[in-house]
Amino acid sequence: MAWKRGDPIRNGADYIESLHGRELDVYLFGKRISEPADHPIIRPSINALAATYDLAVDDPDLASAPSDLTGGTVNRFLHVTKSADDVVAQNRMQRRLGQLTGTCFQRCVGMDAVNALFSVTFDIDETHGTSYHQRFTTWLTEMQRLNVVIGGAMTDVKGDRSKGPGGQADPDLYLHVVDRRPDGVVIRGAKAHQTGAINSHWTLVMPTARLTSEDRDYAIVCALPVDAPGITYVYGRQSSDTRSMEGDIDVGNAQFAGQEALVVFDDVFVPSDHVFMDGETEFAAELVERFTAYHRRSYVCKSGVGDVLIGAAALIADYNGVPKASHIRDKLVEMSHLNETIYGLGMAASHESIQRAAGNWEPDSLLANSCKLNVTRYPYELARLAQDLAGGAVVTLPSEQDFDNPDIGPVLEKYFKGRPGVPTIDRVRALRLIENMTMGRNAVGYLTESLHGAGSPQAQRIVIERGSDIEGKKRLAERLAGIEPAD
Amino acid sequence: MAWKRGDPIRNGADYIESLHGRELDVYLFGKRISEPADHPIIRPSINALAATYDLAVDDPDLASAPSDLTGGTVNRFLHVTKSADDVVAQNRMQRRLGQLTGTCFQRCVGMDAVNALFSVTFDIDETHGTSYHQRFTTWLTEMQRLNVVIGGAMTDVKGDRSKGPGGQADPDLYLHVVDRRPDGVVIRGAKAHQTGAINSHWTLVMPTARLTSEDRDYAIVCALPVDAPGITYVYGRQSSDTRSMEGDIDVGNAQFAGQEALVVFDDVFVPSDHVFMDGETEFAAELVERFTAYHRRSYVCKSGVGDVLIGAAALIADYNGVPKASHIRDKLVEMSHLNETIYGLGMAASHESIQRAAGNWEPDSLLANSCKLNVTRYPYELARLAQDLAGGAVVTLPSEQDFDNPDIGPVLEKYFKGRPGVPTIDRVRALRLIENMTMGRNAVGYLTESLHGAGSPQAQRIVIERGSDIEGKKRLAERLAGIEPAD
Amino acid sequence: MAWKRGDPIRNGADYIESLHGRELDVYLFGKRISEPADHPIIRPSINALAATYDLAVDDPDLASAPSDLTGGTVNRFLHVTKSADDVVAQNRMQRRLGQLTGTCFQRCVGMDAVNALFSVTFDIDETHGTSYHQRFTTWLTEMQRLNVVIGGAMTDVKGDRSKGPGGQADPDLYLHVVDRRPDGVVIRGAKAHQTGAINSHWTLVMPTARLTSEDRDYAIVCALPVDAPGITYVYGRQSSDTRSMEGDIDVGNAQFAGQEALVVFDDVFVPSDHVFMDGETEFAAELVERFTAYHRRSYVCKSGVGDVLIGAAALIADYNGVPKASHIRDKLVEMSHLNETIYGLGMAASHESIQRAAGNWEPDSLLANSCKLNVTRYPYELARLAQDLAGGAVVTLPSEQDFDNPDIGPVLEKYFKGRPGVPTIDRVRALRLIENMTMGRNAVGYLTESLHGAGSPQAQRIVIERGSDIEGKKRLAERLAGIEPAD
Amino acid sequence: MAWKRGDPIRNGADYIESLHGRELDVYLFGKRISEPADHPIIRPSINALAATYDLAVDDPDLASAPSDLTGGTVNRFLHVTKSADDVVAQNRMQRRLGQLTGTCFQRCVGMDAVNALFSVTFDIDETHGTSYHQRFTTWLTEMQRLNVVIGGAMTDVKGDRSKGPGGQADPDLYLHVVDRRPDGVVIRGAKAHQTGAINSHWTLVMPTARLTSEDRDYAIVCALPVDAPGITYVYGRQSSDTRSMEGDIDVGNAQFAGQEALVVFDDVFVPSDHVFMDGETEFAAELVERFTAYHRRSYVCKSGVGDVLIGAAALIADYNGVPKASHIRDKLVEMSHLNETIYGLGMAASHESIQRAAGNWEPDSLLANSCKLNVTRYPYELARLAQDLAGGAVVTLPSEQDFDNPDIGPVLEKYFKGRPGVPTIDRVRALRLIENMTMGRNAVGYLTESLHGAGSPQAQRIVIERGSDIEGKKRLAERLAGIEPAD
Repeated sequence: MAWKRGDPIRNGADYIESLHGRELDVYLFGKRISEPADHPIIRPSINALAATYDLAVDDPDLASAPSDLTGGTVNRFLHVTKSADDVVAQNRMQRRLGQLTGTCFQRCVGMDAVNALFSVTFDIDETHGTSYHQRFTTWLTEMQRLNVVIGGAMTDVKGDRSKGPGGQADPDLYLHVVDRRPDGVVIRGAKAHQTGAINSHWTLVMPTARLTSEDRDYAIVCALPVDAPGITYVYGRQSSDTRSMEGDIDVGNAQFAGQEALVVFDDVFVPSDHVFMDGETEFAAELVERFTAYHRRSYVCKSGVGDVLIGAAALIADYNGVPKASHIRDKLVEMSHLNETIYGLGMAASHESIQRAAGNWEPDSLLANSCKLNVTRYPYELARLAQDLAGGAVVTLPSEQDFDNPDIGPVLEKYFKGRPGVPTIDRVRALRLIENMTMGRNAVGYLTESLHGAGSPQAQRIVIERGSDIEGKKRLAERLAGIEPAD
Repeated sequence: MAWKRGDPIRNGADYIESLHGRELDVYLFGKRISEPADHPIIRPSINALAATYDLAVDDPDLASAPSDLTGGTVNRFLHVTKSADDVVAQNRMQRRLGQLTGTCFQRCVGMDAVNALFSVTFDIDETHGTSYHQRFTTWLTEMQRLNVVIGGAMTDVKGDRSKGPGGQADPDLYLHVVDRRPDGVVIRGAKAHQTGAINSHWTLVMPTARLTSEDRDYAIVCALPVDAPGITYVYGRQSSDTRSMEGDIDVGNAQFAGQEALVVFDDVFVPSDHVFMDGETEFAAELVERFTAYHRRSYVCKSGVGDVLIGAAALIADYNGVPKASHIRDKLVEMSHLNETIYGLGMAASHESIQRAAGNWEPDSLLANSCKLNVTRYPYELARLAQDLAGGAVVTLPSEQDFDNPDIGPVLEKYFKGRPGVPTIDRVRALRLIENMTMGRNAVGYLTESLHGAGSPQAQRIVIERGSDIEGKKRLAERLAGIEPAD
Repeated sequence: MAWKRGDPIRNGADYIESLHGRELDVYLFGKRISEPADHPIIRPSINALAATYDLAVDDPDLASAPSDLTGGTVNRFLHVTKSADDVVAQNRMQRRLGQLTGTCFQRCVGMDAVNALFSVTFDIDETHGTSYHQRFTTWLTEMQRLNVVIGGAMTDVKGDRSKGPGGQADPDLYLHVVDRRPDGVVIRGAKAHQTGAINSHWTLVMPTARLTSEDRDYAIVCALPVDAPGITYVYGRQSSDTRSMEGDIDVGNAQFAGQEALVVFDDVFVPSDHVFMDGETEFAAELVERFTAYHRRSYVCKSGVGDVLIGAAALIADYNGVPKASHIRDKLVEMSHLNETIYGLGMAASHESIQRAAGNWEPDSLLANSCKLNVTRYPYELARLAQDLAGGAVVTLPSEQDFDNPDIGPVLEKYFKGRPGVPTIDRVRALRLIENMTMGRNAVGYLTESLHGAGSPQAQRIVIERGSDIEGKKRLAERLAGIEPAD
Repeated sequence: MAWKRGDPIRNGADYIESLHGRELDVYLFGKRISEPADHPIIRPSINALAATYDLAVDDPDLASAPSDLTGGTVNRFLHVTKSADDVVAQNRMQRRLGQLTGTCFQRCVGMDAVNALFSVTFDIDETHGTSYHQRFTTWLTEMQRLNVVIGGAMTDVKGDRSKGPGGQADPDLYLHVVDRRPDGVVIRGAKAHQTGAINSHWTLVMPTARLTSEDRDYAIVCALPVDAPGITYVYGRQSSDTRSMEGDIDVGNAQFAGQEALVVFDDVFVPSDHVFMDGETEFAAELVERFTAYHRRSYVCKSGVGDVLIGAAALIADYNGVPKASHIRDKLVEMSHLNETIYGLGMAASHESIQRAAGNWEPDSLLANSCKLNVTRYPYELARLAQDLAGGAVVTLPSEQDFDNPDIGPVLEKYFKGRPGVPTIDRVRALRLIENMTMGRNAVGYLTESLHGAGSPQAQRIVIERGSDIEGKKRLAERLAGIEPAD
């Protein structure tokens, strides 16, 4: 039975259908495009998101969970964690989706934002007597029922990085409230490199950083449908993006890719029911920290992507006839080790979750940040090792069209042959996948997003510094050194 | 009330008392020593073990647990894990003891051996119809009741490393059964660098490696009291060990140290009741793997030791007047990050425990090995960073006696002064602690034991290779690259 | 005065002119292209080579040298080294060209091959009484006079890497002689990822590896004009290559790029005058080793490219308003340090050159290989650090056409603004340059070619092992340890 | 013919003789010792220095050079460089002495100070019309004639590191002039961890850091005989130092060690003839920079020490029967590679020397600092890898006395046996040498001195930052990115 607007989304096919016919203002290559879901550059990113729906069908234990809000089973990406095991289950699901797509599937920001806001709205209400939590759960219940994709819009464009929101030459360089009306607020600004922005149904707007009491207008959290009037999207380019328009081999991973876009809010109205923070500046940092406690260990998804890269590297070693060479095995072991180190830290953070007053569970912040800091390093080393195993052909292969050419194709077939028994074209495909993940479309997600997504490495270092209890550690050292403790 | 032989050990003081008056054959500096527990070089290692008793008194939740065998509460080091949480609790206790002692407290080998043997004896019985498991639990129940220290003797001296037990010029280079009698077996051989050997009450002898079916006499597991006739101990030297005989400052950590010894078994008789494997060669590898699944994540203790080192480094930066310098803070953050990475992997391995047929829980092997592989690297980098923050004085300070000398002492007091307000001698103590942990007595445990304890890095790599499912990962890559899967 | 065929090439413009009107068989994107020099994807690689001509005009001391063969001044890329200073001067020139082009300028293979062959042909003649050296210098004199580009074709396609030339299912997987005629030889095979192949005038064909005495037909060295009948070129794809056809911003470095191609030799005839080795199998390894002694330290060019990347990273930090942040300065210092480490090792190798019997000078092999091994690592870390400083926008910027669009362009102008005073488009350009060098067209040369060019890391390790005199080092250790030396 | 005071020193034996009978105020273990040269802890450091004399006899080309001052041949450690080749020759000599002693031979500070002062005194005179250069060369000529050891005293004790000389609570925490008399100056203060201080004949006192114009009294450079009235030495402890008093095996390297001491100047008079700077504060930084340009590449000595460690690691692998295991060979290669990287950077710095106005040659500062920064890292990794190859026994071996004991000795002989054919005691000696170099006496010089000697890593980073011409690199990037250059 075909899906129609207003129905809950049941699977990936419904999801893709749900993206059609919307009035989104999307720019790509200098043109406003009418049906983004059908654009060959955008479609692979939609496929990746669709995988989050299909996994819930194929493996419901892994990718769905019972909701206290709806009383039914909901997609895990929309679920409020009720235990540390729920937090851990997110990581398992993320690794699996990384394995299935080899890229960013774009639904974690919403999952992590929902969970952070669940507790922050509760705490604001406790402090200020507001009713954000009720508003939020009402909205979330509906989201769960419809099974939509929620994006999160956090990263402001920031202008001069040496100054905060209040110090910018142009106040719009951080998103802020420009008007308050009886029935809602009007916001202006832009959020940069928003993951899956165009593939979402709703967006949660959140501040990006600690705010001072003067920054009241910047302390805004709200939910908007992605097609709210006044929102414009400009699609972000990726390395080798146009190969998605060429064929299916040279792109490396024809089916899946990530997506990031600039989202511009040009005086967009948000009704009060969808406002979940407005002016409570002291909770901005709190929100960022709780969100990143979730989101920085969500990067275990990269260990799933790493599994694919390890597999591709092993495949090419096999095709080259040298899977047993000791230095090759050793490099595969090193890749696995680094990959499991990423995974282990994320899992530890999730297992060590704490419960918030609102009742939901949140990962350990120190371990989550340590997880992410490893993510800013190890995928780059995995990529280097994969290229090492791949050999130089990973960046010098002729094009797919050359292989198809009747004159030169057979010559290439002859000369790019690996060990007997392996079709030349399979060798080419494995190499193209490695290229895709290490300097092509999906290198964006596997490498640079690993560096900057959920905050750049320096942001993790700051949290680690705060969380590492240096004073307590000094006391340990004093005791063993025989030093009278400082008071 | 004074402890007397046969009583359960209640605390650290009882424990130390329990070590007196034994007939141990111990050599140190070329002499047989009569009362090892009182030797100034040995005592710090005993203090470290005593801390495992005192912690169970001070924080019973952390360091003890209810036993199904005795029906009462037992020290966690003697406990058979009944859940993943039990496995995790071991890691928490280990980090805490690392923080309290700044060294190896020597009781983990026994804990991990007990848990590995609990399931392995069960499985041997299932296969062979033997009754090892019953023997083992009977023995263990008594150990729990008495609250003794169980050591584990696994590492054979190995001779020519290119050959296995059967290929050695001297068959004794791996411990083996030299006689089988109606009432027990006679064993001969030696186990190298056995942690806490002299500080234990009982020892579990186990094979060190995978065995072939010809190696039947090497497939021996048994328990012996440490003072069984025929056992000789030769104390292992440590860097700067004799400083423990000098005073309390230059040794760096006057109270605590580790201990390793060569244990020689010269035709030692073991009654049948204490034999838990004899000839079932195919279970040797299984035992090693289960033991190392526990023991390789037990190295999270080093994150507790790392906490002390981070504290000492922060202390000296403070004493030098530059705790806020950005490069110093950055190095402390890096130390914390690496330290938490060690901890996180161990915790993940424990949280992800599996249940064995015998009922007890065992850490995830892949994560445990990845934990240990990080332990073979990061403490060295932490040590380097600590020395960086310490400055050159960490290795060029005059001796304690110079500071005590009435002529030169005041001059040193003047010239080794750091920032105002810090006693010079505290600065000296902090530096000596860093020296102790990075190239003194406790560097042995913090660095080299981190490298080789529970198996050298290459051993971890082998397990990681086996556990990383390269074939499964190839399938993931083939799917995304559009390659028809190999069958 | 316009250049015409047969004239010496005087500068970059002449050089580009010299590439026109040739009958090359070149395939790109599945089509045979008629005038490669004018193709927008190929042209940037030609510009990079042209820079080697222009530098010789602009800075003759750096990029030219007096030749004993012609008696005049020749381009340094064609010069036979007459002193260690000559070898060093190559490195200085290479760093400068890396700085000027930000990519691979493709003329080093020829320079290094010429120098290796100068001594190897001499030594073959000494052994076998052949006259290769005279042939070679006669040919080289003419090359110097004409000031042409000489490429080197060494890397065979290799098929099953577990087997040598003789073990392949298809004998053509290593290039070999298929016919010997009175006046010359006929060769067949293919050389993979040949740098600047299409931009050269002549190519030196050389074996790729150590050969056994059975591999006689594979021991062939000869020179061919690139348009010799039977040679076909298939252009290698690079990440984001088609951006060169789009405009000038998104490509990042509009002017310069590298080039690699598959070169197929389909029964190509080579007259005897241009054959410089034929069957002297024992000199194949010698040639490879001498060539790589030059070529592995030629990779100091990457320190010139690194200078550009460091500059781009500093630029973006400046544009973001945070050039003084301590962690940013620290990362720039780390980049510089790694970059100078690459340079220093190459320079040391060149300064420590030895003189060959033929009279020319050759870099120290151990240092050259150590240089290259660092090159397989550090550019990747420099790239990671550059992306760290760049921020996420480096991979999520909208396209050039979006900035040009009258509707969305001004919005992007507003929101991608950095600190006041910096044109937004300059910020975009700096980011695109970083993208270009870390995951775009020139990442191919800066990263993957750094890994595999002049041999993959394992090849360097083998030479380092051989060159590190482990036995001599054992003697040093024995002496200090008080061990009677083994004989 | 026996050496007598006033004679030139001809060789190591003379040198040792020259140290006897001096009235030095030396404290060690809380006692003033009468004849330091005969103390078993001090003697190994004297032996290391003696090797610098013997090498000049055994290999005069390597360790001596013709002097323009004396007109004769002088020890290279006293020589003023007359060419870049002279600077390079220092490095070759240093690596050789590292190989011969396995430790710090303590004579480089003087060599480097002499060369730095040669040009700085010249430049001060040019600016201020003083006559320091003449004074200095007169003094140096006499030093060369006598062939004495010149030490350099630079590192002040520094107190509160957040403040300079003028900001300290106690002005003596930086050495300064406390009185100026017609015939000379009186100085007070202390210099920390002075290499070879007690083994020298003369000391050059120099400021440790950049000075402001207020710091005039701290801008003092002068030469003193080490037994000048008012100087006191307090010997610095080293890890495991007392093993030098035990026997010859456990110390690891019985013959050679380093030495560092605190040198206290308690109102010491210096006659004007020996004052080479007094108050010219603007030249303090210049002196430090020139000195460190020499001294930071002098750390190539550590590659000589590294050669010994690599040899010891290879030896133990051989003794263990596994020299051909791929992971062991791979680790040896990695050690060699890192070691050559140290060497190569130093050699590059020396080869790229510049000539100063005074006529002497000085290493390239950027490369010298990059060399030293690698030295702060790689020896630690070499040490870790050596311990990896050594196995756990490197830190758990019984004592020498145990091996000598008639009861337990034969048992140890049996059980510490490696592969057949290797005497057990040789295996022990090789292990003790590795212990010595990685956590014993010579680890002080190989590791911690590598970190802090010639300035801690942060000092190198500052010079690298200054030398890396970031602005020039920005121009390179702008040009390629198509950005109009900033002016």
